[in-house]
Amino acid sequence: MPETGVRLHSAGFVNGAHVLAVRVYYEDTDAAGVVYHASFLRFADRARTEMLRDLGATGVAPMANEGLGFVVRHCSADFLKPGRLNDLLEVHSRFLEVGGASVTAAQTVKRDGADLVCMQLTLVCTTPAGRPARLPPELWTLLRDAGAQTVRD
Amino acid sequence: MPETGVRLHSAGFVNGAHVLAVRVYYEDTDAAGVVYHASFLRFADRARTEMLRDLGATGVAPMANEGLGFVVRHCSADFLKPGRLNDLLEVHSRFLEVGGASVTAAQTVKRDGADLVCMQLTLVCTTPAGRPARLPPELWTLLRDAGAQTVRD
Amino acid sequence: MPETGVRLHSAGFVNGAHVLAVRVYYEDTDAAGVVYHASFLRFADRARTEMLRDLGATGVAPMANEGLGFVVRHCSADFLKPGRLNDLLEVHSRFLEVGGASVTAAQTVKRDGADLVCMQLTLVCTTPAGRPARLPPELWTLLRDAGAQTVRD
Amino acid sequence: MPETGVRLHSAGFVNGAHVLAVRVYYEDTDAAGVVYHASFLRFADRARTEMLRDLGATGVAPMANEGLGFVVRHCSADFLKPGRLNDLLEVHSRFLEVGGASVTAAQTVKRDGADLVCMQLTLVCTTPAGRPARLPPELWTLLRDAGAQTVRD
Repeated sequence: MPETGVRLHSAGFVNGAHVLAVRVYYEDTDAAGVVYHASFLRFADRARTEMLRDLGATGVAPMANEGLGFVVRHCSADFLKPGRLNDLLEVHSRFLEVGGASVTAAQTVKRDGADLVCMQLTLVCTTPAGRPARLPPELWTLLRDAGAQTVRD
Repeated sequence: MPETGVRLHSAGFVNGAHVLAVRVYYEDTDAAGVVYHASFLRFADRARTEMLRDLGATGVAPMANEGLGFVVRHCSADFLKPGRLNDLLEVHSRFLEVGGASVTAAQTVKRDGADLVCMQLTLVCTTPAGRPARLPPELWTLLRDAGAQTVRD
Repeated sequence: MPETGVRLHSAGFVNGAHVLAVRVYYEDTDAAGVVYHASFLRFADRARTEMLRDLGATGVAPMANEGLGFVVRHCSADFLKPGRLNDLLEVHSRFLEVGGASVTAAQTVKRDGADLVCMQLTLVCTTPAGRPARLPPELWTLLRDAGAQTVRD
Repeated sequence: MPETGVRLHSAGFVNGAHVLAVRVYYEDTDAAGVVYHASFLRFADRARTEMLRDLGATGVAPMANEGLGFVVRHCSADFLKPGRLNDLLEVHSRFLEVGGASVTAAQTVKRDGADLVCMQLTLVCTTPAGRPARLPPELWTLLRDAGAQTVRD
């Protein structure tokens, strides 16, 4: 029996973009034999979560402490090529702009260097009750330092 | 014990728009206590499927016979208000434009008359192998008669 | 354009069993061309929710008022035949036993009278914090009157 | 900006059991604030897929070549403790018995060494048309050598 170690599903930053590897399982596909379109939004959500985690606890902890979260306000997606069962995809994520209470992100799902799906999202920071809230300053700084342009919103 | 008859989840056309009622269950929600954003794309997909079904077998049967299907090429969604567990939502759907091999649709998820999510989609007719294919003429005519503008694509 | 009225997805009691109609959409299927096995658990969850709703507000309202909910403690499922895209399935549900803080249910997913999936579940009533809690007496009575055997748990 | 390398979501064999790390994202949770029960079946499915992959191409390639696949025939699950958003879970998987056309598996989802969900599954090897089929001999041998007891089915 093989005794393998840590493997698969890497995450990290490459040239300023965060990259998360995502394997395609049966749950992600549909009877057309390809990845169901809404599954790509789930993959992008996972990638944003891991990107924030990788950006470090100093920025994200204040959000968690205050019960703040990000909700998707807008999403635009171009589905260019189908994904397939067993594909090992990569989600490349960048935060483009950071405002007082929102961020925009560009995310591309790739396979072997080819773009499958390109997404642009606007996320709003909200309180547990769903009200818009200002980003904690530590997180705002972190996103700016990670390359996001600062804007007013 | 109550003996109720047919109930819930109506589908049909109201003022030219197709309306599908969708109940929100636990599976559709997330730990933020609201409908998970990608769930709205699933609701919209159900509504398009039922709209095509309601438009009649004469138009859809040729697609099925040839193994043709629609794939989502583009989707843009504005998430305006959150959905909640047990909500009885309505998906209002219209086909806006029909081309030789594609259609565009506008879909709005409503609750008690208020818009929760507004979507615009472009769908492409494809062969079982995923190649773009011309819409069967019966379906093209049906979509035109249902109010879609005819365009070249 | 057809102008149809209420349609599809009926719910109600037939011979003591609750019956919910469920349409199979792309989201429910996988690349093997059939309904993904975990989707049947989602269908069963929808059916239990509608069954409780159909049993009447008098029994369910006290649960909601106190923030009580049911969690699945045990599930056993036999997958006998595959479901297919566009199938109109029926979920037949019965509560078998009701205890002080739990209920057992038998649920069968059928197509044209044939059993696709047979499930047995144990559900536990819990507080918002996840602690087991006694069923509100109104609901306990309702489940007993709906045919569930009373047991101690 | 941190420059991290490969991280997260390990897979491999530990003491004869296959272990897959699974992160809990919003998509996996529900409005009760915990992992939705059917999500655990998705996690277990991912783990079986990676286990077969880790067992090596020599055993699995013949299945893929002939279009064979595994379908879940039976599943029994005990949900002992809830999973939470952001949990890093482990799915521990063992194949218990291998027959001519089926295998049984025991899978446990753990967090910090504690059992959350214990599952037992029976899987049947099927043709693309859904008919039961004999396991390729290479795979049968591989599963036996991985510790599964050989049985007749």
